[in-house]
Amino acid sequence: MNIAILGVGLIGGSIGLAARARADARVSGFDASPQVLEDALDRGAIDEAAGDLASAVRSAEVVFVATPVGALAQTTREALAHAGESCVVSDVGSTKRMLSELARDQRFVGGHPMAGAEGAGVGQAREDMFAGATWYLTPARGTSGVLYERLHRLLVAIGAQPAAVDAEAHDRVMAGVSQLPHVLANVLVGEAESMVHSDEDVRAVFAGGATGPSFRDATRVAGANSAIWTDIYLANREQLIARLDAVGERLAQARGLLEAGDSAALREWNERARAEKEQLGRAEGAAEAARELRVVVPNQPGVIAEIALALGRAGVNIADLALSPSEDNRQGVVALWVRGEAQLARAQALIAELDFPVVRT
Amino acid sequence: MNIAILGVGLIGGSIGLAARARADARVSGFDASPQVLEDALDRGAIDEAAGDLASAVRSAEVVFVATPVGALAQTTREALAHAGESCVVSDVGSTKRMLSELARDQRFVGGHPMAGAEGAGVGQAREDMFAGATWYLTPARGTSGVLYERLHRLLVAIGAQPAAVDAEAHDRVMAGVSQLPHVLANVLVGEAESMVHSDEDVRAVFAGGATGPSFRDATRVAGANSAIWTDIYLANREQLIARLDAVGERLAQARGLLEAGDSAALREWNERARAEKEQLGRAEGAAEAARELRVVVPNQPGVIAEIALALGRAGVNIADLALSPSEDNRQGVVALWVRGEAQLARAQALIAELDFPVVRT
Repeated sequence: MNIAILGVGLIGGSIGLAARARADARVSGFDASPQVLEDALDRGAIDEAAGDLASAVRSAEVVFVATPVGALAQTTREALAHAGESCVVSDVGSTKRMLSELARDQRFVGGHPMAGAEGAGVGQAREDMFAGATWYLTPARGTSGVLYERLHRLLVAIGAQPAAVDAEAHDRVMAGVSQLPHVLANVLVGEAESMVHSDEDVRAVFAGGATGPSFRDATRVAGANSAIWTDIYLANREQLIARLDAVGERLAQARGLLEAGDSAALREWNERARAEKEQLGRAEGAAEAARELRVVVPNQPGVIAEIALALGRAGVNIADLALSPSEDNRQGVVALWVRGEAQLARAQALIAELDFPVVRT
Repeated sequence: MNIAILGVGLIGGSIGLAARARADARVSGFDASPQVLEDALDRGAIDEAAGDLASAVRSAEVVFVATPVGALAQTTREALAHAGESCVVSDVGSTKRMLSELARDQRFVGGHPMAGAEGAGVGQAREDMFAGATWYLTPARGTSGVLYERLHRLLVAIGAQPAAVDAEAHDRVMAGVSQLPHVLANVLVGEAESMVHSDEDVRAVFAGGATGPSFRDATRVAGANSAIWTDIYLANREQLIARLDAVGERLAQARGLLEAGDSAALREWNERARAEKEQLGRAEGAAEAARELRVVVPNQPGVIAEIALALGRAGVNIADLALSPSEDNRQGVVALWVRGEAQLARAQALIAELDFPVVRT
């Protein structure tokens, strides 16, 4: 399989290493920085350093756009312009709505691997970066089933766990669980540091080593790489603003309980947080054994996306998927693997609702 | 040395273990729960289980009040009522202002060890709990120098690093670096958990395992032990409310940058957080070699506290301290150890300003 990677930094480089080692792929790479491109070649993350974007994607069957978030839209547009008719183009950006207009092209599937490292650059890239990691995909109504399947299978081959989700929901959740903690970390260090300057009595307390584990944990990501995070904040700013407003209301509520000095209500508020933390843990389900399900589908764009999204929405994750077109190419069979009996039953019911026949379970 | 510990849970029990092992102390313990008291005895945290508070403190030279925060004030008051004339009474609460009225008694010194564990109860107590840990002390104008010294030396003996600080400044800092991160952790899980319930598309994203390290770090302390934290929030609520208001302003500022879509300003805001984090790290100085300083002081209440606070306020921490009264008991020599040449010079200058003669350096 021929793969092109545009932007061969930490994530792009890791895709290259993983695809070469685990999927027997031939990888062509391009990067705006000739030095980075050379490093990727030295590192074995790519087979070939392309002279420009067009030649990188020309014979690719799968293209990954892994540039910084600020350059994603433009680079993906160019990739689609130069890629072949039957090439699937995906990206690895942490916000998905901003590329949703590109999904009018049936070759585009947005993606977001939940993986990374403290450092940056191809020097930190690892072949096992995606082993066991969730890789969100945001197929749209028009997405080609054949191309979606190719991407899905490649991701499984490099060790990832693809999960089809709605782009807007993805961004909403990421605002709450990723961008918001980063903003709060920045606010916390800012607040503490401003106290250091307030007076010498306070400074003496800091000199004693006032910050314990709760502060260190809460501020670990403060001032994260500005080159990456400025773009991420901006790319998802509507959702993030909504989350900040919600946080403001929650803080006002906590403030009200403190001001009232209401011990019972404060205790209840804290106990609720404990329960919410546990419920959140349960919402991120544990893996069970894979069970197979085969579905007859018309061979037309959007069908696979429709199934993947219907299942994803109901909390049924597709662990693996294979599409076999019939000989006349008018319909085909999708084999789906889901985790556990409960998900299998749920998947069957959902697919029945979509009016596709389930041929064997 | 006879020590009494009132409340023999995680911290009280650890003081007992450490004082018996490291300071050759005889420890009398009392707890409102007979079962806890028995466990402490079994665990070797105390030598003797007292039948009531009065008999626990009767022959003590040092009393530690280590009850839950809600019971601290009352228990400390009773301890002072029953303790002898030359007994020093301290507590281990994480807010210090609420006991400041007790500091009218020259035998009382507020304290706060920066140590703890995930669990609770004497079963989790450890002899090395305070090894290398800062132990804030909040001596007041009237504090007896002899008694302050005894407490200071005992804390050094059990491995802690006492740091004399102003009670109000202590509480202000703790609101910002301890209670505030706890409140924000609660708010973050509440916000995320409410999203789970918003719609099935969002639920599917969570089912994929949306929360990464930044969320997990930021919410580790969410819903912390309500029996402990409800009291802590209430005990320091004025400072915490002030910090919540400041956080509200900082969030509004970040929101403004996002709304304006100002990339340069967002980057600058994030870079500032990075710088603030580094500056905060520097404010918590690293240890240098101890240097000795000897000061002639009148033997009267408040002198040691005055020196300790003046040094603490200037960021000079007293690593160790010893008081030798003269034979006529009218004056004495305080030996102080501070870290490094710079702190030594600073300490000399500060003590000169207080008009106490420095006899040898």
